[in-house]
Amino acid sequence: MSFADKLAAAWKSTNSLVCVGLDPEPKKFPDRFRDAPGGIFEFNKAIIDATREFACAYKPQFAHYAAHAAETQLEHTIDYIKATAPNAVVILDSKRGDIGSTAEQYALEAFDRYDADAVTVNPYLGRDSVEPFLKHADRGVIILCRTSNPGARDLQDLHVGPGKKLFQHVAETVAKEWNSAGNCMLVVGATYPDELADIRGRVGDLPFLVPGVGAQGGDVAKAMAAGKTQAGTGLVISSSRAILYASSGADFAEAAHRTAKDLRDSINAHR
Amino acid sequence: MSFADKLAAAWKSTNSLVCVGLDPEPKKFPDRFRDAPGGIFEFNKAIIDATREFACAYKPQFAHYAAHAAETQLEHTIDYIKATAPNAVVILDSKRGDIGSTAEQYALEAFDRYDADAVTVNPYLGRDSVEPFLKHADRGVIILCRTSNPGARDLQDLHVGPGKKLFQHVAETVAKEWNSAGNCMLVVGATYPDELADIRGRVGDLPFLVPGVGAQGGDVAKAMAAGKTQAGTGLVISSSRAILYASSGADFAEAAHRTAKDLRDSINAHR
Repeated sequence: MSFADKLAAAWKSTNSLVCVGLDPEPKKFPDRFRDAPGGIFEFNKAIIDATREFACAYKPQFAHYAAHAAETQLEHTIDYIKATAPNAVVILDSKRGDIGSTAEQYALEAFDRYDADAVTVNPYLGRDSVEPFLKHADRGVIILCRTSNPGARDLQDLHVGPGKKLFQHVAETVAKEWNSAGNCMLVVGATYPDELADIRGRVGDLPFLVPGVGAQGGDVAKAMAAGKTQAGTGLVISSSRAILYASSGADFAEAAHRTAKDLRDSINAHR
Repeated sequence: MSFADKLAAAWKSTNSLVCVGLDPEPKKFPDRFRDAPGGIFEFNKAIIDATREFACAYKPQFAHYAAHAAETQLEHTIDYIKATAPNAVVILDSKRGDIGSTAEQYALEAFDRYDADAVTVNPYLGRDSVEPFLKHADRGVIILCRTSNPGARDLQDLHVGPGKKLFQHVAETVAKEWNSAGNCMLVVGATYPDELADIRGRVGDLPFLVPGVGAQGGDVAKAMAAGKTQAGTGLVISSSRAILYASSGADFAEAAHRTAKDLRDSINAHR
């Protein structure tokens, strides 16, 4: 199945645009997971069990595993999503970017080792750094465009031509040149709804991964108005900390369930 | 010791600007390492033994470990460098780039888990994505500026102001703003000597990590003429494949020794 078909099926079967970001921070875990061997995987399992009915996607963020030497738990987490939430898209959020021969190794990592459905990629090194990912038409390649952080302005807003900023150039390059297999998405932060609307105007129905709601303060209504497509989809709206750490007590899973449901409902109210 | 002092000491004590890139590709290994458990570490050990007298730095490239689930062998490799080549700088080449809270996790990975002396970082997400690395004054933060690959032209050469390209803006931003702790370097490919000279003209004695000699075709004489400082240093010139795979036979270590020595000598002839 093509990546575009898989994503469309995920939106439809879950009736949701919510992506649950799996950014484990053991010091924020409830006690029984914090120092337990395999605690990251066990915590993720509980979160996945609590949220799968509301999630079209899961997005493990690589740094949070790498910092804790928890690659095996990342593998187990992805296996568990595939086994118990087979309709959800798995996004490995590792923002890879390197020369072609090295990018081949990163594609192996993302698509073979971790068997992710999609991976996030940084465009700074240009076309040949993205090509080894693009050629997998059954996998998504999610290219950083306008990120959700304050520093997004530093380079991404530089004018690279009359009336055109770097992030706008990236958006158009991806839509017109890199997306020939139909498997590209863009990262566009919910924290910048004006830029989100601008990019939507440049790239047709290209899907966006939208971080920045929840802990980073992005507004769901504004993001939906700015970014949704005519079909009422086009966005994968990711929340991590606000769901994972909705409660630090024994009720963390119920709290995550409720928060994911509320986010799903609030998004659907604006579709 | 500050990172700048450590790098200066490495150049001096080894009388070399050579960085040996540790990019293991098991299919290119001599037979006895190829499918052996721990073969990546054993191969690296043999390369380190063969090259340490000519190397001011070692640079393990992260993708080549991640693709093979070889993080433990990466840890062992770095431990081995520290034990047997204590004057060399260890550069974790992972080109990290993410929002601030995530970059904190990547800093933990690079500086605590792997205990690297320096890490490569992508500037696309701006200042707050680099800040968690910068604040470690004893560690190097090596920011992508003008990379060695063909796609370097795609974004890095875009004009972001009158007579100023994106890579030139990055170079100046790093030199003037991000380098306040004196621990920054820039990645500048040897494959583009004109750009290398241009950047040197903009940033004073800021040190560069220079990939692209060897398999990628960069010329040592041109790179030295374009990039060295008045002191005859300022560059960490990295070669990976040309050294690691100088021979695929039983003489691979001797061939690596010879190739690293030749590179050291050819660089020193132009200092």
